[in-house]
Amino acid sequence: MMIYFTFDPRPDLKDDLLRDFPDQEFIFENKVEEKYLKIADILVTYGEDLTEEHIEIADNLQWIMVVSAGLEKMPLQKIAERNITVSNVRGIHKVPMAESVMAHLLANKRSLPWIYEKERKAEWNRKSKSKELRDSTALILGPGAIGGEIGRLLQCFGVKTIGCNRSGKKADYMDKMTTFDDLLKVLPTVDIIISILPSTQETHHLLKAEHFKAMKDSAIFMNFGRGDLVETNILKEALLQKEIAFAICDVFEEEPLPQNHPFWNMDNITVSPHVSSHSSRYLERSFEIFKPNLRKWLNGDKQLENIIDPYKGY
Amino acid sequence: MMIYFTFDPRPDLKDDLLRDFPDQEFIFENKVEEKYLKIADILVTYGEDLTEEHIEIADNLQWIMVVSAGLEKMPLQKIAERNITVSNVRGIHKVPMAESVMAHLLANKRSLPWIYEKERKAEWNRKSKSKELRDSTALILGPGAIGGEIGRLLQCFGVKTIGCNRSGKKADYMDKMTTFDDLLKVLPTVDIIISILPSTQETHHLLKAEHFKAMKDSAIFMNFGRGDLVETNILKEALLQKEIAFAICDVFEEEPLPQNHPFWNMDNITVSPHVSSHSSRYLERSFEIFKPNLRKWLNGDKQLENIIDPYKGY
Repeated sequence: MMIYFTFDPRPDLKDDLLRDFPDQEFIFENKVEEKYLKIADILVTYGEDLTEEHIEIADNLQWIMVVSAGLEKMPLQKIAERNITVSNVRGIHKVPMAESVMAHLLANKRSLPWIYEKERKAEWNRKSKSKELRDSTALILGPGAIGGEIGRLLQCFGVKTIGCNRSGKKADYMDKMTTFDDLLKVLPTVDIIISILPSTQETHHLLKAEHFKAMKDSAIFMNFGRGDLVETNILKEALLQKEIAFAICDVFEEEPLPQNHPFWNMDNITVSPHVSSHSSRYLERSFEIFKPNLRKWLNGDKQLENIIDPYKGY
Repeated sequence: MMIYFTFDPRPDLKDDLLRDFPDQEFIFENKVEEKYLKIADILVTYGEDLTEEHIEIADNLQWIMVVSAGLEKMPLQKIAERNITVSNVRGIHKVPMAESVMAHLLANKRSLPWIYEKERKAEWNRKSKSKELRDSTALILGPGAIGGEIGRLLQCFGVKTIGCNRSGKKADYMDKMTTFDDLLKVLPTVDIIISILPSTQETHHLLKAEHFKAMKDSAIFMNFGRGDLVETNILKEALLQKEIAFAICDVFEEEPLPQNHPFWNMDNITVSPHVSSHSSRYLERSFEIFKPNLRKWLNGDKQLENIIDPYKGY
């Protein structure tokens, strides 16, 4: 098999792969090149570099392994037509992302931005207004692998978790479930709203002005999924009108967030530059998913871990 | 009984108390006054306002309820001689303190200070160097009520916990135990060192230069106990020599930390102004301990919750 990486992994990870699969041919290139596309049986990509044209000329391509969770930049329609298998690394984000969500939430409750500010001024000031996370209620939009890990950690901190998905189908580490349709009923009862929803037709602009109006004015809204969950102006208005207390966003409708955007200077939002999944162990974890999948594939077993339905996008 | 508060609690908490104990006399004053000391049977204090002279003139005093955990500013010798019962609110700090420790630790791993800095500059920069907390090993110096809660949360995050006390006696939420005497052997094996030790003869300057030299150069040292655990200059040298990667301190040998102290500007230490136990629910929780204790006391039951041995100081 010809296995084409459109990025160049760390030497130790490459060596490891070559050692484990000595009979396969590997290409590691930091770009998408036609000559390699034409011969590749398997493509390994971060999922942001492929076009419909690439798929058309990739005559041998049978499987695309995406070492990312978001697939919205993939030409999925064309991939579906060609009947190419797509798998991703859903799940490897769960540890770093859940740790990031907990870090931001606890930092907010325990006054860390305030402490850092006093530190910059060399000011010993003990008038912190710290709150506790314990005994809060959190709504998790998208209680899948990542949402479940966030739910598990929240429960450890004594937080009640409500999962929210389309169907209301039970999910791990959620004390109870609700549906997108019932959001307006549930929002007034929760202290923290955390979205890790992917971008799909159903989640695009799912949250409207009325949803923010329905939230407690003490609510914390965290978007760690995709920026198109809410129109930027709706979120901005909700924050300016203090319909909620605070927002912590790792994703935005427009990324990079433009330098002149008001979010940068507003004091009731934390802007995180889409880094919550970053981890020094990211590729190592991706390879832990890729290698068993590759072994299966070579054995003719097409039941890979984390197969994506290209029509649904997840 | 005459119950003298040397501080003035929130109105709702006072009302609640007066309603629950209509037959008792309460004095709420924001200071220590001789005329009240002379008649008080029970004293409720934050524990920083009493002198030996106060104890001498408090003729009727039988019980001092300290709504704090640290007792080092109490005239304990004199209190012991007079055979006055002392109780504190040990345990109510555990939720806010454990949340603060986790907040600081996760913030460090997940690059929050870096994210905040980029935000101040309106800079969309995705080159974060985030790490994961998972699979670390933490040494908890003082695995009591607070240390146990920290241990419980660390275990939720997949961190291995090693408790360290004088005897090596088993403690909750510690995967294994070690002793003060074995510190030099254990320190090279751990990634995170967290102290919540009280200030006692045994813990005073317990950590020496050799201990910091024994730590991994990637280690994070967190002092959330008392500042005299380590001489300031020893910690400073360890940080300047990069014998450890980072320190997060909520307590210091000299408090307030002097404004010209190098710690304020060093980039491998976070200075927190002794606020980790702060919580909007602090007094509410204190009253939840005080009220059942008062009920016991009025019934002649002297087996109060959280009784302190004034000779030991804990």
